[in-house]
Amino acid sequence: MHFTTSTSVSGVTSRDFVHDGVPGVLWTPPGTATGLLLSAHGGGQHKRAPGITARAHACAQAGLAVVTLDAPGHGDRPRTPDDDHYAIEIRARITTGTDAGPLVAEYNALQAARAIPEWRSALDALLGLPEFTHLPGAGFWGVSMGSALGIPLTAAEPRVAAAVFGLLGAADHLTAAAASITVPVRFLLQWDDQLIARPAGLALFDALATPRKTLHANPGGHGDVPAHELADAVRWLADRARETTPAPR
Amino acid sequence: MHFTTSTSVSGVTSRDFVHDGVPGVLWTPPGTATGLLLSAHGGGQHKRAPGITARAHACAQAGLAVVTLDAPGHGDRPRTPDDDHYAIEIRARITTGTDAGPLVAEYNALQAARAIPEWRSALDALLGLPEFTHLPGAGFWGVSMGSALGIPLTAAEPRVAAAVFGLLGAADHLTAAAASITVPVRFLLQWDDQLIARPAGLALFDALATPRKTLHANPGGHGDVPAHELADAVRWLADRARETTPAPR
Repeated sequence: MHFTTSTSVSGVTSRDFVHDGVPGVLWTPPGTATGLLLSAHGGGQHKRAPGITARAHACAQAGLAVVTLDAPGHGDRPRTPDDDHYAIEIRARITTGTDAGPLVAEYNALQAARAIPEWRSALDALLGLPEFTHLPGAGFWGVSMGSALGIPLTAAEPRVAAAVFGLLGAADHLTAAAASITVPVRFLLQWDDQLIARPAGLALFDALATPRKTLHANPGGHGDVPAHELADAVRWLADRARETTPAPR
Repeated sequence: MHFTTSTSVSGVTSRDFVHDGVPGVLWTPPGTATGLLLSAHGGGQHKRAPGITARAHACAQAGLAVVTLDAPGHGDRPRTPDDDHYAIEIRARITTGTDAGPLVAEYNALQAARAIPEWRSALDALLGLPEFTHLPGAGFWGVSMGSALGIPLTAAEPRVAAAVFGLLGAADHLTAAAASITVPVRFLLQWDDQLIARPAGLALFDALATPRKTLHANPGGHGDVPAHELADAVRWLADRARETTPAPR
């Protein structure tokens, strides 16, 4: 993990890095981190998209370190012909009001296959840093394409101890992964999501095996998750981190 | 409003009263109340049922005064032949695994028609008490039969400023009332509710007109709302009361 620049805003330090060729950002709170959060961005976004940066600052203010990576074909990473093809086709279907769902699900599955090893490798490297040796694992926050990555990642990776998912509908490979998730999950659903059919979103929540899952549904479209819901997810993740991180000696 | 006994536990005072022949309890916090909560019990319960008492204490610790009434045919109130008929039939259907839904909905509608004038009259009397003259209105918390009362009450009563509903499914008179509710609503749904079909619960949430509504769904049956959800509802109601109550002079 090769750190490049470092800047501080309101006590929160953000460091750009490259790990195995993947660019990312690590935000750290003023003191010792009480937990580490893997924060995955959505489709078409990147590691410093406004929502990702705001979420990272809120989590760092609550004591968490936050890491994000550019998804394959996103941000500062090269786009393959496949990335271009899906981006153009998905945008065209959304613009014309055609159902983009199946194509998004296809692209999401491709993305997850590429990104999961990158996140696991980044987690290895981060937990090896002196500042994080006290942490047993990490939480995860990613909605939409972030959940398409996060659900199979959380199913495969025992060090992910709690997760915020949502804004995504059931698809075969996702429900199979969801059925083996046993850690606490907060699931966000937008009641009037123009990209995710309501029954598909409910079905994905239903598929999660964990008994500690809560669905929070709010009116509005895909991008309209209310601020109070985001603030509440930060508190929830900070509480889960406190449950799993041993008290400092 | 005729107060009879008064007891104090951990700074929370509870006073039994009778108002227009209806027995109730008023819990008040140690200092000036920051809000008033109308707390309606569920079917087969009463004004001092353990869940109602625990909820009242938690709300009072958060600064709210809480009032509850025995529902018609419940607690210390006489049962009509109709009350007995429905109680026996509903219990029999639940025991035999027959669908009790339509019968419960019928009884709930009857209950609401009887109880709404009682709650409005109690609200008149309470807001006239010297200790509550600073309050512009009240919040409402009632799930299951409590929501069957609370949804038409909130639709009809402009002084109800926020409400916790849930554990109830759509029925014609309820969805009509829900469609005229514009105050903030927290809606609790149990994902494996044995009494309320999941689509009916989701449909009732859907029918609420207010843009400030959030659905919280958790695994488990009708009686299994998790403790964290109840604690969160207390905080939410206390926050809503602070939004609507003028600061003390």
